[in-house]
Amino acid sequence: MLVVHVHVHVKPECVEAFREASLENARQSVQEPGIARFDVLQQRDHPTHFVLVEAYRTEADPARHKETAHYQHWRDAVAGMMAELRQSTQYVNCFPDDTGW
Amino acid sequence: MLVVHVHVHVKPECVEAFREASLENARQSVQEPGIARFDVLQQRDHPTHFVLVEAYRTEADPARHKETAHYQHWRDAVAGMMAELRQSTQYVNCFPDDTGW
Repeated sequence: MLVVHVHVHVKPECVEAFREASLENARQSVQEPGIARFDVLQQRDHPTHFVLVEAYRTEADPARHKETAHYQHWRDAVAGMMAELRQSTQYVNCFPDDTGW
Repeated sequence: MLVVHVHVHVKPECVEAFREASLENARQSVQEPGIARFDVLQQRDHPTHFVLVEAYRTEADPARHKETAHYQHWRDAVAGMMAELRQSTQYVNCFPDDTGW
């Protein structure tokens, strides 16, 4: 598993629009065979901060995700909503093991 | 849902011991009725950095978790392994909704 946390800081006036666009993207992303999870989290004490938690089954799956229409639609829709460049960090799963996702 | 990301930076010589202690804690934590997930992630490009992803069903469940023997054992076992104080951030789930965890 390759787990990616994408940290997003959006403009205050864009919080609802970002949330809606990201929900739509998440609903479709979890249908991809290479994606085990696609959580959208909003920080409690900073509601303009979100984390997308993307769990991919193989190394090739992030690139496949980026080829989908729903990803490209999301990317374009949220481009103007960012307060700063989004940042991503890659993790390996220690627990659960690959069968638990 | 209350999702907590606990960021941990461990001393280089403690990576394996921290990993083992955290796996044991995670295995027992996911048995708690108030815990939907308890992932242990290790950062790819900084293997001394871990994130514990703890998904609690209610506001009361983090406190219940801290009362368990396995949490207290983990807390004491890893106390000397930290390179710096661990930091936690609280999130609400936008996706999936509460039924999807």
